[in-house]
Amino acid sequence: MANTEQADTTLIGPTIERIAPLDRAAMAAAQSRLDGLTKPQGSLGWLEELAVWLAGATADATPLLPRKTVVVAAADHGVAAGGVSAYPQAVTVAMVQNFLAGGAAINVMARAQGATVTVVDAGVASVIEPPAGTSSLRFQSRRVGAGTADIRSGPAMSAEQAEQAVAHGIEVVAGLREVGVDMVATGDMGIGNTTASAAITSLWAEASVEEVTGRGTGIDEAGWKRKVAAVRDALEANRPDLSDGLDILQKIGGFEIGVLAGVILGAAAERVPVVLDGFVSGAAAQIAQAIAPQSIEYCVAAHVSAEPGHAIALERLGLTPYMDLEMRLGEGTGAVLFFGHVEAATRVLSEMATFDEAGVPGRDDS
Amino acid sequence: MANTEQADTTLIGPTIERIAPLDRAAMAAAQSRLDGLTKPQGSLGWLEELAVWLAGATADATPLLPRKTVVVAAADHGVAAGGVSAYPQAVTVAMVQNFLAGGAAINVMARAQGATVTVVDAGVASVIEPPAGTSSLRFQSRRVGAGTADIRSGPAMSAEQAEQAVAHGIEVVAGLREVGVDMVATGDMGIGNTTASAAITSLWAEASVEEVTGRGTGIDEAGWKRKVAAVRDALEANRPDLSDGLDILQKIGGFEIGVLAGVILGAAAERVPVVLDGFVSGAAAQIAQAIAPQSIEYCVAAHVSAEPGHAIALERLGLTPYMDLEMRLGEGTGAVLFFGHVEAATRVLSEMATFDEAGVPGRDDS
Repeated sequence: MANTEQADTTLIGPTIERIAPLDRAAMAAAQSRLDGLTKPQGSLGWLEELAVWLAGATADATPLLPRKTVVVAAADHGVAAGGVSAYPQAVTVAMVQNFLAGGAAINVMARAQGATVTVVDAGVASVIEPPAGTSSLRFQSRRVGAGTADIRSGPAMSAEQAEQAVAHGIEVVAGLREVGVDMVATGDMGIGNTTASAAITSLWAEASVEEVTGRGTGIDEAGWKRKVAAVRDALEANRPDLSDGLDILQKIGGFEIGVLAGVILGAAAERVPVVLDGFVSGAAAQIAQAIAPQSIEYCVAAHVSAEPGHAIALERLGLTPYMDLEMRLGEGTGAVLFFGHVEAATRVLSEMATFDEAGVPGRDDS
Repeated sequence: MANTEQADTTLIGPTIERIAPLDRAAMAAAQSRLDGLTKPQGSLGWLEELAVWLAGATADATPLLPRKTVVVAAADHGVAAGGVSAYPQAVTVAMVQNFLAGGAAINVMARAQGATVTVVDAGVASVIEPPAGTSSLRFQSRRVGAGTADIRSGPAMSAEQAEQAVAHGIEVVAGLREVGVDMVATGDMGIGNTTASAAITSLWAEASVEEVTGRGTGIDEAGWKRKVAAVRDALEANRPDLSDGLDILQKIGGFEIGVLAGVILGAAAERVPVVLDGFVSGAAAQIAQAIAPQSIEYCVAAHVSAEPGHAIALERLGLTPYMDLEMRLGEGTGAVLFFGHVEAATRVLSEMATFDEAGVPGRDDS
C-alpha cells in the first residue's frame, strides 16, 4: 500500500515480556514518606494514592516527571461512511493540521500544563504534509493505511496491519524515551472512532451495544440509531477472538486505537506512567489489556467521559477515574488537564517538609 | 488588646454596595466564542461552564488570569481546649512558620501551579515573626486577637472583632489588586476550625450537628463525640441572629473565617474570581452569603472535601464542586490544584482556533 510506514513487529513479544509488576518497595517508601509529611495522614486524599502509584510505576519513591507529552494518534475509519458521526471524514485531516498549527484544544491544554503534543498520523485518509523541519515530538508519520475498511461488513484491517499499528505505538514510546519524555498521555482524533470504541467495549466489557454507544461528537437520534446498528453489524460480521487482543483490533479496531494500545504496552515496559484520556483511549487500553493485562497497572484514568461507554470500559479495566467534568472531546484533553494533578503529587513527595524537618508538633495521641 | 492590627471597618458597607451581578453580555460573548471553536459544541463539559463564569465574573469575554494567589488565613480557636482536634494548638503557629519556609502542602501545590501563597495571620495564639523583608504577598500580620474565646460557653469574639476580621479580608484583596493579582483562592489554617465551621454550617445550612461534624485532622471516635458536643454547646450558648452574618461570625466563627469572608466580599466587589477550597472556606463563604448573598456569584467550588459538612455547605451556597478527590487538608490545597483548570479554561477562550480560522469543515447538518 502506498504511503505507509513499516514498524518492527518483532518488538511486540519482547515488549510484553518486559512488563514487570509495580515496584512494591518504592510504593512502601513513598507511603512512608507521605505519612511523615506536615499534614494529617491521608488528608490529600486521592493525590496520595496517585503519588504512591507513580512511585510504583517508576520504581522511584520520589519520582520527578518534568517531561510530559500527549500522544495524539489520528486515523480515519471506513465506518464513517455509515453516517455515524455529526462531522464529515475530512475533519480528521483538518484537525491534524489544526494540531500542527497549535490551534486545537489539546494544544491549548498542553501549553497550560507545560507539556508537549506529539501528533501521530496512524492512517488518516489523505497524507499529511507537516511544515519542513517539524520535530518528532510534534509530528510522526506512522501510517498503517489510508483509513480502515468499513467494519460493518468485514475486518477493519489485516492481521499484519494490526501488528503494525501496535508496533508503531511501541516505537513511538521508544523515540519519546530517547528525548527524555518520562510521562505520556493518550489522545485520539478520528471521525468514526467512537463507533469502533463502542464495538470494542461492548465485546470486551460484555455490555450491550446500546449501553456503550453514545452521541460522539453530537449526532442526533436517527444518527445514534445508525451508530447502534453499525456497532451491532460490526460485531456480527467479524466475531473477534476474545482470547486474542490483536484479533479484536484487526476486526473492529482502528489504526489510532492500535497505536495507542502499543503506546500503553511500550510505556508499561519502560516504566513510563500513562495517563488515559476518554472513551477511545479506554478502547485502546482494553486492547492492551487483552494483549498484556499487566500493562494496565501502568495506567491511570484521568477522568470519566460523558460518553456512556467510558465508565463501563474503566470498570472492565479496573481503573477509578479521578475527575468527572463531563468532557467528551478526546484529543487527550482530559488527560493533559490531569498532568497538573500528577505534578502536584510528585512535588508533594519531593518538596514537602516532614514534621521533624519543620519542627511541627505531632498528633496528641502519638 | 496587644499585638493586634486595626482595619478600616467603614469599608464593609461600600464594599457590599459595589458587588454587581455577573456580566451577562460577557458571558454570552464567551459562550458564542466557545461554540465557534474547533471542537464539538459543549464537548469540554464543565470547563466551558467555567470559562463562561470567568467571563461573567471579570466582565471580559476572554479573561486572562495570570496572577493567582491563595490567601491562607490562620488563627487559633479557644474551642481547641475542648479536645476537638487530634493535634495540639501549637500546630497552628508551627504550620504558619512552615508556610513561610515553603515546606507545607500549599507551598508545593502553589509552585506546581505558578501561583503565590499569601499567608495572613488573622490571630494565632502567639505572634509570628516573619523573616525581615518578607513581602506582603508572602505574609501579612492582620491579628484580630490572640485566638478566639471558647465558643462552647460564649461568643468567639466581640462584635467589633467580627467587623475587624471582615474588614481585614477586604483590605487584603485591595492590597493584592495593587500588585496585580487577578484571581484568589481561599485557604485556612487553625487547629479547631472545623469545629467552628461545623457550627456555622449546622446553623446556616440547617443541618444536624452530627451530619456536619467530621473527623477534621483525624480524631478518634471519642474525640468526634466531644466535637459534636462542642458544636451543640456552641449553638446553644450563643444562639446567633440568622439575619446577621456578622453576628454569626462573632458568636461561633473564627478570625480566619472572618478574614476569608472579607476576602470573598472584597473580591466580589472587585470582580476578582474566587476559588473556594474545602470545609472552612465553605463556612467563610456562608458568612459572606449571610452578609451579601450576591458575593457567592463570584465563587467557584474547586472540590468537595471528605469532611461531611462540606457537601451540605456547598448545597446551601448553591455551588456544584468540580472535583471530588477526598481531600481534607485545607490550606487552600484543593483550590490551588483547581487553578490548572482555570488556566485551561481561559486559554481555551483566548487561544483556540475557530472552525473558520482553522479551515476545519463543520457539522454535516449545519
